[in-house]
Amino acid sequence: MKRDIKEIVSKMTLEEKAGLCSGLDFWHTKGVERLGVPSIMVTDGPHGLRKQDTSADHLGINDSVPATCFPSGATLACSWDRSLLQKVGTALGEECQAEGVSVILGPAANIKRSPLCGRNFEYFSEDPYLSTEMAANHIKGVQSQGVGTSLKHFAVNNQEHRRLSVDAEVDERTLREIYLASFEGAVKQSQPWTVMCSYNKVNGTYASENEYLLTSILKEEWGHEGFVMSDWGAVDRRENALKAGLELEMPSSNGIGDNRIVQAVKNGELKEEVLDKAVERLLNIIFKAVDNKKEGAVYDREQHHSLARKIAGECMVLLKNEDNILPLKKEGKIAVIGGFVDKYRYQGGGSSHIKPNKLDNAAEELKKAAKGENIVFAKGFSLDNDEVDSKLMEEAKNAAASAETAVIFAGLPDRYESEGYDRSHMRIPDNQIALINAIAEVQKNIVVVLSNGSPIEMPWIGNVKGILEAYLGGEAGAGAIADILFGEVNPSGKLAESFPKKLSDNPSYLNFPGEGDTVEYKEGLFVGYRYYDKKEVETLFPFGYGLSYTTFEYKNITVDKKNITDEEKLVVKVTVKNTGKLTGKEIVQLYVRDVESSVIRPVKELKGFEKVELAAGEEKTVEFVLDKRTFAYYNVDIKDWYVESGDFEILIGSSSKDIYLKDVVNVEGTTAVKKIYTRNSTVGDVMANPQARKLTEELLSSTFGQGTDDSENLGTDMTAMMKDMTLRSILHFGGDKSKEKELDKILEMLNK
Amino acid sequence: MKRDIKEIVSKMTLEEKAGLCSGLDFWHTKGVERLGVPSIMVTDGPHGLRKQDTSADHLGINDSVPATCFPSGATLACSWDRSLLQKVGTALGEECQAEGVSVILGPAANIKRSPLCGRNFEYFSEDPYLSTEMAANHIKGVQSQGVGTSLKHFAVNNQEHRRLSVDAEVDERTLREIYLASFEGAVKQSQPWTVMCSYNKVNGTYASENEYLLTSILKEEWGHEGFVMSDWGAVDRRENALKAGLELEMPSSNGIGDNRIVQAVKNGELKEEVLDKAVERLLNIIFKAVDNKKEGAVYDREQHHSLARKIAGECMVLLKNEDNILPLKKEGKIAVIGGFVDKYRYQGGGSSHIKPNKLDNAAEELKKAAKGENIVFAKGFSLDNDEVDSKLMEEAKNAAASAETAVIFAGLPDRYESEGYDRSHMRIPDNQIALINAIAEVQKNIVVVLSNGSPIEMPWIGNVKGILEAYLGGEAGAGAIADILFGEVNPSGKLAESFPKKLSDNPSYLNFPGEGDTVEYKEGLFVGYRYYDKKEVETLFPFGYGLSYTTFEYKNITVDKKNITDEEKLVVKVTVKNTGKLTGKEIVQLYVRDVESSVIRPVKELKGFEKVELAAGEEKTVEFVLDKRTFAYYNVDIKDWYVESGDFEILIGSSSKDIYLKDVVNVEGTTAVKKIYTRNSTVGDVMANPQARKLTEELLSSTFGQGTDDSENLGTDMTAMMKDMTLRSILHFGGDKSKEKELDKILEMLNK
Repeated sequence: MKRDIKEIVSKMTLEEKAGLCSGLDFWHTKGVERLGVPSIMVTDGPHGLRKQDTSADHLGINDSVPATCFPSGATLACSWDRSLLQKVGTALGEECQAEGVSVILGPAANIKRSPLCGRNFEYFSEDPYLSTEMAANHIKGVQSQGVGTSLKHFAVNNQEHRRLSVDAEVDERTLREIYLASFEGAVKQSQPWTVMCSYNKVNGTYASENEYLLTSILKEEWGHEGFVMSDWGAVDRRENALKAGLELEMPSSNGIGDNRIVQAVKNGELKEEVLDKAVERLLNIIFKAVDNKKEGAVYDREQHHSLARKIAGECMVLLKNEDNILPLKKEGKIAVIGGFVDKYRYQGGGSSHIKPNKLDNAAEELKKAAKGENIVFAKGFSLDNDEVDSKLMEEAKNAAASAETAVIFAGLPDRYESEGYDRSHMRIPDNQIALINAIAEVQKNIVVVLSNGSPIEMPWIGNVKGILEAYLGGEAGAGAIADILFGEVNPSGKLAESFPKKLSDNPSYLNFPGEGDTVEYKEGLFVGYRYYDKKEVETLFPFGYGLSYTTFEYKNITVDKKNITDEEKLVVKVTVKNTGKLTGKEIVQLYVRDVESSVIRPVKELKGFEKVELAAGEEKTVEFVLDKRTFAYYNVDIKDWYVESGDFEILIGSSSKDIYLKDVVNVEGTTAVKKIYTRNSTVGDVMANPQARKLTEELLSSTFGQGTDDSENLGTDMTAMMKDMTLRSILHFGGDKSKEKELDKILEMLNK
Repeated sequence: MKRDIKEIVSKMTLEEKAGLCSGLDFWHTKGVERLGVPSIMVTDGPHGLRKQDTSADHLGINDSVPATCFPSGATLACSWDRSLLQKVGTALGEECQAEGVSVILGPAANIKRSPLCGRNFEYFSEDPYLSTEMAANHIKGVQSQGVGTSLKHFAVNNQEHRRLSVDAEVDERTLREIYLASFEGAVKQSQPWTVMCSYNKVNGTYASENEYLLTSILKEEWGHEGFVMSDWGAVDRRENALKAGLELEMPSSNGIGDNRIVQAVKNGELKEEVLDKAVERLLNIIFKAVDNKKEGAVYDREQHHSLARKIAGECMVLLKNEDNILPLKKEGKIAVIGGFVDKYRYQGGGSSHIKPNKLDNAAEELKKAAKGENIVFAKGFSLDNDEVDSKLMEEAKNAAASAETAVIFAGLPDRYESEGYDRSHMRIPDNQIALINAIAEVQKNIVVVLSNGSPIEMPWIGNVKGILEAYLGGEAGAGAIADILFGEVNPSGKLAESFPKKLSDNPSYLNFPGEGDTVEYKEGLFVGYRYYDKKEVETLFPFGYGLSYTTFEYKNITVDKKNITDEEKLVVKVTVKNTGKLTGKEIVQLYVRDVESSVIRPVKELKGFEKVELAAGEEKTVEFVLDKRTFAYYNVDIKDWYVESGDFEILIGSSSKDIYLKDVVNVEGTTAVKKIYTRNSTVGDVMANPQARKLTEELLSSTFGQGTDDSENLGTDMTAMMKDMTLRSILHFGGDKSKEKELDKILEMLNK
């Protein structure tokens, strides 16, 4: 329906406009009945609806209506599958329509800076490109159903510790290349109806009041058309937040925020046009929601449950499969052990914690999949505490000893991992470690199935033959595990994050979670594999890693041009063949390495990926189209993405560590950056520029003298030493006042 | 002689005063004949005199007069011997008196941030406490002879790459605790007559123009009484440097600097009092030099050569001694191999490169020490390039095969390591690696003697039984090596720096040598062992490590009090026993660990060391007196050293990794730091303070409500989540305008 939004705004009172800029209650925007402005509902996500019905309390923590719990963000990202993310989004959108929800809060595109962040299970990746592709397609899916998303938490919210008061200090280039890039692609590709600002400060200013983030970058540079809402309770000074570009404060501020806006307009601190513009953005989305509402919509809970199972099966990552212990043979006795067997952990704690429509039980699903009586179960450990229960342990050992294979369900209990607080270490509980080691004494054939939202240390890895990283698989995750364990599904997930061997290997370790209310991102660009690559630190499992029940061969890399400018596109093709006996999916990864750079860069960066399904013996050619951004870094001097001319390696592989093919392309940067010379420019810099060299050569030789070969007296290479001298320092070695003037003149000519 | 310096200053013209603030030529200050102000000579050091005679050229690189070349700073520091450093200083002072030199430039107390820094061979350590103790005692020795020193290069000059233009960006706490601390003790203990500013910028301002460094900290806070001179050519804008506290520009500025001062005074930019004060400081030292001059002084070159040998023997570090391959038996044939045998590398390149009085030849010294004809020699590799010379290699293999033991002299050639440029990797030349591996094919008994000024990687370490790190041992270093190899001297040096396994393990690796003209010290406090400890990175050899031909036992740690305030001193005693069969020296190291801290701190830090000589079977008790600084960190909020109350572990060991004894002391900090509460203080912070808790409790419970147990609905621990909420964010969950005012009132009361 066409409406004149500007006209509606013009009819609103100051108080009505200010009122629209904060929630009605915990979950609704305010309406303005006399002008036909409706109230819309927003609800927690991101991987399922947490909709509180009419009994919603003022803290937003009461019971919620049942909904499909899909795998969480960390799990979904391991699919590396854009279309899969769209499917999840579409299903979420359908559920929103059925529940009358206009905006579902999510997806969450924060970077996994530390494995300890309590909310990592909701986030996609340590890599901004993978993260932003996942977020973009999640958004496309939801919004295809006429329901809005809220891309969150913008920005640099990478820990729960002191999340409402901490200041994340991050340098401009890292901010652009890592933390903002993870949002940028999603905004540009998919126009989320809303973006949610985070609680924390970024470089000294609350995200909610950060004009640089909310207006300069998000709205102006990236062209975001929707509105920005606050995380729940993130607004401090409402009038400043509005000025900075935050249109909607959530939840209700109980009049405090509205009043501050009204006062600020009245006393001239805030221009009313700023408020009008904000209300316009709000109304655009509110009416879009209303126009897209499908009255009487329903969704098929059973079908969504099946979808959740299928999706989970595409995400889980096979980490170890010694002696091809997986898939399990259906003959022979299997001991299934662990506190998670009867209480499968499928989601994390906090605002994303939902009430599932239906919940698979691991024991039941395994029994069904095994189609027989050959499974015995044992609890092995309690989830409520970390102490070894010797009775449970003994039972489990007996069960394992009497079987051909032991499958242990291990991982992180709820209390270890949640929104609101971070982990303090990377271990699973001691009683689980003790159990795995005890089972290993009586059984050589052990498969561990892990439920966790973030990497763990595995000191017991040498004692087991198989590891399936099931992450948090959603309500049908247990079924998906059964599918993979028994070979119904060939695992195809790959890690969207590195698994370090130990916590202290992580790049943020020295500065996480910071000191008092400051956390400094001193590792800079070197997050995840960017760090492990550069520092040559061996990981337990590298970024991009994952096994399959079949095998793949990589061959025939081609690039369509060997020389391009940064305004041209480059097409890279590579052939992948399934060389095993089963149909399987492979995630082909493309990384780019700048062979030589004048700035500090990671060894390589992910710039493309494609997931392809191949029948046994089948081969397909995968195509990547690369553009300027592929080769660029963020140049803080010119405040733009910039390609430094030179050779770039195109690297193709099955993980960040398993690179099979390589080609080189020369890219010419077309952005000219003017070099300014000063008294303190070095001789080496001047000599590197032919024009500058010509102008200064005479001055240099007349003051410093011709390069006599006195190196031996100092046991050094004088030429090398000269290179780093500055122009004005040369004057100390034979200059006088006239030379100083001569230098000034030369500099003037050079900088013209 | 008593003089009225102020009166002399008052008689000087503006031009004379300005003139005194820069050199007469490369090596002299200006005199003012009419007022009896003499010109004095300064000369390169630090571990020997590089005095150019009358034929000194304008670049300062011509031949110099012979002098004793003592081991370089990196070598000396491995002695961990304060009295030894004083002996070296005393000998240097004697040579200065004999040569008419008033100030010898050095010692150099820069921290070894990266093993690649070309000038590391002149520097002492990666640890500021060890470094400053070495510098302080070097200075005491020199100045005991009535000769001045110039403690250099002040400050944060930790690389040669772009040293005249680079800006070293380092946070305040790291600056204080690491980079400045390395100078601080030396200034406070020993009052060097002069301090030399470095070439680089520190946090945006040239060291030469850095008032914060040269005046606020050096002169005012540390009480430096002498003057500051520039490194040669370090001054950019002379008038700014003078204002900042730089009294003497070196070398001559050919009138440029003098003129800028005169103009600045004339046009009012510079107060003449500032100039007067500078001239006063200059004259104080100039006259002190003159008054202390010993006319007709001579020194005994032979005696200094013997001293140099004795000193070198106290510094070298035995790194590996499998099967007690060392000391060498005098029976049996020994093959001595390597390009360094006939061209022993004993010093580094650049301004510290001196012309030795007498130079030991390694072959000769070994023959003398072996007292027989049982040594064969082979060159093995050329020092001029990195290529394998198969003829030399073959000869060396034959020599080694025919002997009982092979001693290989390896290390870094001159061209690898010098002032003026940094290394790009940590390897010794490929031809040397190839040689060691080739010899290992024919000989199991290999000892490697290393000549190098900074750590190297040792991929060949498994192929050799013995490694003697001889560093750069000065003119008699070859003799000292012979002493140690044949057991005349029991090695007692310990590493003053960590040897990482590979370059990328080094903490500065990601940010060294920086980008363009900026180098960011993002590793912060985590330099050297502070990093390897915290990150749990295994080193090749840890800081403080070194073997002996005898063995030591540590026992009976005692502290005189278990509870102290930071105003009291703590006495720690420990007994060390020589449990072997030879007299030897042990370096007892004391580290302190803050058990719990609200700021990020290293795992432990060196706070004391003593070198003790013990006859076989003898034991001695070593005593350490610890004060506030031992336990303090630099608190950037109060801009002072600060002890946070709590337990501290006193750790005693023979290296940073070999800790044998431990005790705990509780230290009460006596500095009160007022906590300020704001709207954005967290609930956890407020609750931790009993008074604040009492005042806010009612507000919190009346808005947020009593802690109902709704945790299960969100699968999380609500109490943990609450802790990090801010006071004002609570108002979102049930507050209103009146509550906001109530909060303001409470804050006002709290902060009173």
